[in-house]
Amino acid sequence: MKQTTSMKYTYGTPIETDAVVDKGIQQGKELIRLVEGEGCFTYTLKPETVVYGLGENLRGINKRGWIYESFCADDCVHTEAKRSLYGAHNFFIVAEDKPFGVFVDYPGRISFDIGYSNIDELIIKPETMDFNLYIIEGETPLEIVKAFRQMIGTSYIPPKWAFGYQQSRWSYKTSEEVRQVAKNFKDNGIPIDTIYLDIDYMERFKDFTVDETAFPNFEAFVQEMKEMGIRLIPIIDAGVKVEEDYETYEEGLKENCFVTDGEGNVFEGAVWPGKVHFPDFLNSKTRRWFGHKYAFLLDKGIEGFWNDMNEPAIFYTPKAVEAAMANVEKHRGENIDLGTFFGIKDSFSNIMNQEAYYKDMYHDMDGVRVCHYDVHNLYGYNMTRAAGEAFKELRPNTRTLLFSRASYIGMHRYGGIWTGDNCSWWSHLLLNIKMMPSLNMCGFMYAGADVGGFSDNTTEELLTRWLQFGVFTPLLRNHTAAYTRFQEPYNFKYTERIKKWIEMRYALVPYLYSEYMKATLSNDMLFKPLAFEYNDPHCTQVEDQLLVGESIMIAPVYEQNKTGRYVYLPENMLYVNFESATNYTVEEMKKGHHYIEADLDHLPVFIRPNHMLILGEVAANVEAQDSSKLHAIGYYKDHCAYKLYEDDGITPKPKLEDSITEIYMSDINVKPEKLEKIEVYKISSCE
Amino acid sequence: MKQTTSMKYTYGTPIETDAVVDKGIQQGKELIRLVEGEGCFTYTLKPETVVYGLGENLRGINKRGWIYESFCADDCVHTEAKRSLYGAHNFFIVAEDKPFGVFVDYPGRISFDIGYSNIDELIIKPETMDFNLYIIEGETPLEIVKAFRQMIGTSYIPPKWAFGYQQSRWSYKTSEEVRQVAKNFKDNGIPIDTIYLDIDYMERFKDFTVDETAFPNFEAFVQEMKEMGIRLIPIIDAGVKVEEDYETYEEGLKENCFVTDGEGNVFEGAVWPGKVHFPDFLNSKTRRWFGHKYAFLLDKGIEGFWNDMNEPAIFYTPKAVEAAMANVEKHRGENIDLGTFFGIKDSFSNIMNQEAYYKDMYHDMDGVRVCHYDVHNLYGYNMTRAAGEAFKELRPNTRTLLFSRASYIGMHRYGGIWTGDNCSWWSHLLLNIKMMPSLNMCGFMYAGADVGGFSDNTTEELLTRWLQFGVFTPLLRNHTAAYTRFQEPYNFKYTERIKKWIEMRYALVPYLYSEYMKATLSNDMLFKPLAFEYNDPHCTQVEDQLLVGESIMIAPVYEQNKTGRYVYLPENMLYVNFESATNYTVEEMKKGHHYIEADLDHLPVFIRPNHMLILGEVAANVEAQDSSKLHAIGYYKDHCAYKLYEDDGITPKPKLEDSITEIYMSDINVKPEKLEKIEVYKISSCE
Repeated sequence: MKQTTSMKYTYGTPIETDAVVDKGIQQGKELIRLVEGEGCFTYTLKPETVVYGLGENLRGINKRGWIYESFCADDCVHTEAKRSLYGAHNFFIVAEDKPFGVFVDYPGRISFDIGYSNIDELIIKPETMDFNLYIIEGETPLEIVKAFRQMIGTSYIPPKWAFGYQQSRWSYKTSEEVRQVAKNFKDNGIPIDTIYLDIDYMERFKDFTVDETAFPNFEAFVQEMKEMGIRLIPIIDAGVKVEEDYETYEEGLKENCFVTDGEGNVFEGAVWPGKVHFPDFLNSKTRRWFGHKYAFLLDKGIEGFWNDMNEPAIFYTPKAVEAAMANVEKHRGENIDLGTFFGIKDSFSNIMNQEAYYKDMYHDMDGVRVCHYDVHNLYGYNMTRAAGEAFKELRPNTRTLLFSRASYIGMHRYGGIWTGDNCSWWSHLLLNIKMMPSLNMCGFMYAGADVGGFSDNTTEELLTRWLQFGVFTPLLRNHTAAYTRFQEPYNFKYTERIKKWIEMRYALVPYLYSEYMKATLSNDMLFKPLAFEYNDPHCTQVEDQLLVGESIMIAPVYEQNKTGRYVYLPENMLYVNFESATNYTVEEMKKGHHYIEADLDHLPVFIRPNHMLILGEVAANVEAQDSSKLHAIGYYKDHCAYKLYEDDGITPKPKLEDSITEIYMSDINVKPEKLEKIEVYKISSCE
Repeated sequence: MKQTTSMKYTYGTPIETDAVVDKGIQQGKELIRLVEGEGCFTYTLKPETVVYGLGENLRGINKRGWIYESFCADDCVHTEAKRSLYGAHNFFIVAEDKPFGVFVDYPGRISFDIGYSNIDELIIKPETMDFNLYIIEGETPLEIVKAFRQMIGTSYIPPKWAFGYQQSRWSYKTSEEVRQVAKNFKDNGIPIDTIYLDIDYMERFKDFTVDETAFPNFEAFVQEMKEMGIRLIPIIDAGVKVEEDYETYEEGLKENCFVTDGEGNVFEGAVWPGKVHFPDFLNSKTRRWFGHKYAFLLDKGIEGFWNDMNEPAIFYTPKAVEAAMANVEKHRGENIDLGTFFGIKDSFSNIMNQEAYYKDMYHDMDGVRVCHYDVHNLYGYNMTRAAGEAFKELRPNTRTLLFSRASYIGMHRYGGIWTGDNCSWWSHLLLNIKMMPSLNMCGFMYAGADVGGFSDNTTEELLTRWLQFGVFTPLLRNHTAAYTRFQEPYNFKYTERIKKWIEMRYALVPYLYSEYMKATLSNDMLFKPLAFEYNDPHCTQVEDQLLVGESIMIAPVYEQNKTGRYVYLPENMLYVNFESATNYTVEEMKKGHHYIEADLDHLPVFIRPNHMLILGEVAANVEAQDSSKLHAIGYYKDHCAYKLYEDDGITPKPKLEDSITEIYMSDINVKPEKLEKIEVYKISSCE
C-alpha cells in the first residue's frame, strides 16, 4: 500500500461505537484540512473537487450539491428531497489535488452539507461535539479507502451459495406457497439458491417462533427445500412482542434485556406484532442473549437470516396514540379551523418513527445509561452484531448468511446490508448503481438492492433492466411488498428472457466470488467509480458506469424504452456483448465516447486490457456448479493474468494466499496453469 | 396539410365536453385500428411502436411501459409510481408504419395501460362506456397532431409581456414584501415582467377580495408596480369561503351557483379558507357570474390571473372529519390492534381529495343533474372557461394572461397551464422537458413548470439548470412553496449567473414569441420530439433534446454535477454555445453522436440548416425591448429564410398573414428585407 497518514482527533466525550478496530491511530494535535467552526467543521470546495462516500445515502457518486444526514430512517419513499436512508455511514473523501478522507465516529444525528447552503462549502455538523474524528491523507481516494478499511476491520464474508439468485416477497405465507414458488422455478428451469420468509412465517410476528399452521413440520420443510437446492432465509425483526408466556418476551423481561423509557419502565412501542419491547442491543449481555435465540432456527436447519425493522422502526407508541386521540376528543363537535384540522391530521399522519420516541428510549451500555436518540445509529448495527457474534459460537465451522436493514460502520464486520425498502422506480435502479461504490468505501461489501423494487408496482422492463445490473451485485434478491404485483420471473410475458439473465448471474459467480473475496480480504473495493482507477478528468463525470472487480467495466441501461446508451471508455477495452451466458460477440472498442445498442436481450460488459473475465457454467444453484468448467475471455495487450480465488465457500476465516490460482497468457500462447479447462479468447489487435 | 382522416365513434350517452369544436367529423361505422373488448379497447404494440401524447402526465415522451389515468389530481409528490397529474388529456398517437391518433372525449376516470400489464399491449379502459372516440389516421404523427388541433380549436394566446421572466412565491404576504422583491430585482439589474400574488393577498383567502391591511390602496399599488414595469398576477381559487355577508358567497347561494350534495344541499368542503362551497362551473349561468367577478381585480388594473385548486382540491369535508373523529372516540381507551390503528391513522392521513367527496357532489349542467365524479376532469377547465369567456366581454380589446392548474382538452382555448405543484427534484426538471411536446400535442401551448421546483428545497445548481431550460418555455416562472428556502435569483451565491440566463430569456423573446404565434395560429407544435421532424430511427430514442420552433434544437443539462452531456444530431447543425445573451461561439457540428461541454456558465443551442435564430436585445422587461434591434444567427446551406412574426402583443385575435416579415439570405450575400438592423452570421462550410 502506498503512504497514507491517519490522524485521530477526540472531541468532548465520545461514546464508544467499536467502529474502528485499529486502536493505534495517532492522536492529532492541530486539526488538519478541516476548519473548526462553532459546533461544525467547514471546508471550501474548489470547482474541481469531488466528494465521494457516505455509504448508503441518496443522490450521486459525487455527493456535491445536497445536504445529507446520518440518522437511520425507515422510509421507502426516498425521493430526492430526503437526506437519510436506512444506514448511517459517516465516511467520505474530498478528492482533489491532495485528497483526504474524513470519518466522524459519532452515533447520533449529524449532517453533511456538501454545497447545499452554499454551493462552494462543505459543512459537517454533529448535534453535539462528542466524537472521534479521523482524517486520512493519501495519494489517491483508493489508497485512502484502503487505509480506512484497514482501520475498521475486515468485512463480513457470506457463504458462497449467497451469490446465487434469491427470491423473496412480503410474504410467502405458507409452506404450500413456498413449495409452489420453488416448483415454478424448477418447472421453468430457472436457477435459484434461496427463498425468503418475510414476517408471516412467524406466529403472529413473534421472533423465534414459526406459525405451525402455515408452516407445519418446519424442520422437515427446511430439509425438503434444501433437497431441491433451495435454502430458506427467515426474517428477524427488532421488536419483541409483548405477550405473556411468550418465551423471548418473558426472558427479556426477567433479565432486564429491554430498552427502558425516561421513567425507567420498559419502553413500549408498536410494530408488526402490535405492542413490542426493544432488546437493548447496546448491552453486551442482551446481545449474547438475543444472538443465541437464533439457535431456534439454526437448529431447524436454517443457514441465513435478514435482520429488519432495526432503525428501529416504530409505528406508534401507546402514549402518542393516546395524545392524538385526546386531541381529537377535545375538538370533537367544534367548528374546527384549518390549523386545528391540520394539527389533528398530522398527529396521525406523522405518528410513525417520531424523534420523540427515540428521545424517550434508554440503553444500558454495560453500566452507562444512554438516551437512544444519542446513539440511534448503533441500534441495527448491534442487533446484527448480536447475531454475528452468536453464530461464531453456534456455528463455528460454517459461514452464516446475515444482512441487515439499518447499519453503521462497524456492522460491516458482522453482516451485509440490503439497501432497505426501495420503490419500483427507474430512479431507484440508478440510485442502486451509484450507491454500490459508496457502500464498498464504508466496508459494506455484501450488499444489493431489492431487484425490481419493493414498494409500488414494477414493470417487466424495469425488472429486466434491474436484473441486468443486479447480476453484478453480491446480494441478488428479487423482493417486493405485499400490496404490489407478483414479481417472480414467471409472472411476466418474457420469462425466458428473465431466466437467461439469471443464468448469466450463475455464469458470473466464479468471477464475482473471486473478486469479492480478493477485495474483501485486501480491504479493496469490488465496485469502483472510474475515477478511482483512471486519472482521466472526464471520469469524474461518469456516474452510470462502474468497474466491477479488476477485470471489467459495466454500463447498465437504467432508462425506460431505451435500446442503447452512451458509454465512455477511459482506455481501449474489449466490448463483450452478451445475448446470453453462452452466446456473445466480442469487439475491440477504442478509448473515448461511444453509443452502443443494448436492448433487453443484450448485456454489454467491457474487459480491461491485460485482464480476463472468468465465466462458469450455468447451473441450478451455486453448489451444483462444476467449478472445473471455467471459461476465460481475456483482452491481451502485453501480458494478461488473472488471480482466481476459489475456496469451499463455507469455511469461516479464509486466507487469501491459500486460495489463489494464477491464470495467465503469454504473448505467444495461452498457458493455463493448474486448471485444465480454460478456454481463452485472445484479441491482440489493440494499439 | 397532408391527407388525414378523422372518424368519430359514439358510445353510450356521452356528456358534452365542448372539447371538440369541429362538429363535422364523420361518424365511423366499423371501428378502425383499435379492438373493442369488454369495457375497453386494445391494440397490440409492435416492438418498434412508439406512443406519444397524454399531455400533462408522467414519464417519457414515449409513453410505453406504464399505466396512466386521467383524473385531475392534486398531488405534488408525483413520483414514478403515480398515474395522474393535474391535467386530464386523453389524446395520444400510436406511431408506427401507419400511425394513428386516438382521442377519448370522456370527462370521467379513464386509464391508458401502455404495456404495463402486458408489455406488448395497449388497453384503454374508461369507467363507463359513454364517450365520443375519435380516431385520426395520417401519414405522420405531426400531421395527426395538426388535424387534432384543428378539431379542438385554436389555442389561447397570452399578451406578449407574459413571455417575460416571472417571479412568484407562496406567498409575498404584504405590498411591502412585494416592493422589496421588485427593488431587489431592480437593484441587481435583473429583468422581470411580473410578480405573483399567492393566496395571502386575499382577505382570509376569499376570492375577489384584497387584504386591505397587508395590501392597502391596492389599485395604487398595482399602478406603482406597473410604473416599474412589473405586473401583479393574483391567484383565484376554486372554492368560495362560507361566510355570511361575504358578497361572492351570498350571491352564489342566492343564485344557486354552488355544487350540491347527494341530498340536494349545498356541498361543503374545506380548503384554504376553511369551509367552502364550490361554484358549479359546469353551469353556464354560474360561469358567467363567476367570470364577471374577476372584474373586481381587472378594475384595479390587474391584467392576468392564475386559477388554482380547481381539480378541485378538497382538504376535507366536515362529514369526513366527523366520521374519522367518531371512529377515534369509539376506540379511545381500548387496547387497539394494528389493524384498528392503521384504520384510524389512514382515516386522517388519506382524508384529502377523496373519491367519496367527488361522488357526493352534483352539478346542474344547464338542467341536467350530473355527479361530479363522472365529469371530474371538466371542473378546472370550466373555471378557466368562465374567466376566459368573461374577459372577452370585460376586456374585449386586450389579451388577459390566464392559466390554470387543472385542465382538460378544450380549456386550451381559454388559457394556458402551469404543470402544477412539482418538487425541487432533478427528475422533475427532466419531466418538465419531456412533457412539453405532449402538452403541445393536446393544445396547451402557453405552458411551463415551476422553475426551481415548488415543494422541497431547491439548490443553486438545480435552479440554474432549470432556468437554462425554462428560458425556452412560454411560461417562465420561478415559484416555490411557503415552507422552502427563498428561491429568488438574488438569494444565491452566483446571482450574476442566474441574472445572465434571465437576460438570455429576453434575448430569446422575439424568436420565442414569433414561433409561439406561428405554431399556435397554424395548429403546429412549439416543442417537438426529434422524431416528429426527422425520419431517423435513432430519434425515437432521444427524449432529452427538443426542437423548439422551426430553427433550433435544444439539449438541456438536467443532472447534478454534470459539466457536459451527450447530444445526438440528426443532421449537421450549427452549435451555438452561449456564455451569455451577447457572448457566444459558433461551430459547425456533424450529424451523429457528440459529447459537448456545458457547465452552468454555458447554454448550447443548435441551429438547423437553412434556419435562423433571431435574438433581441436584453431589456428590463418585454415592453421595454426595442423590437427593431434584432440580430440573426443563420446556418446557411442552400437557402436560408425566416418568417418573423411580430404584432403589438396585446390585441386579441391576431392574424398570421398580417404579422409576418420575411428575412432571408441568398448564397451570395445577406438580404434582410424590411428590417434594417439584422446582422447575420453566415456559415456555409457545411457539406
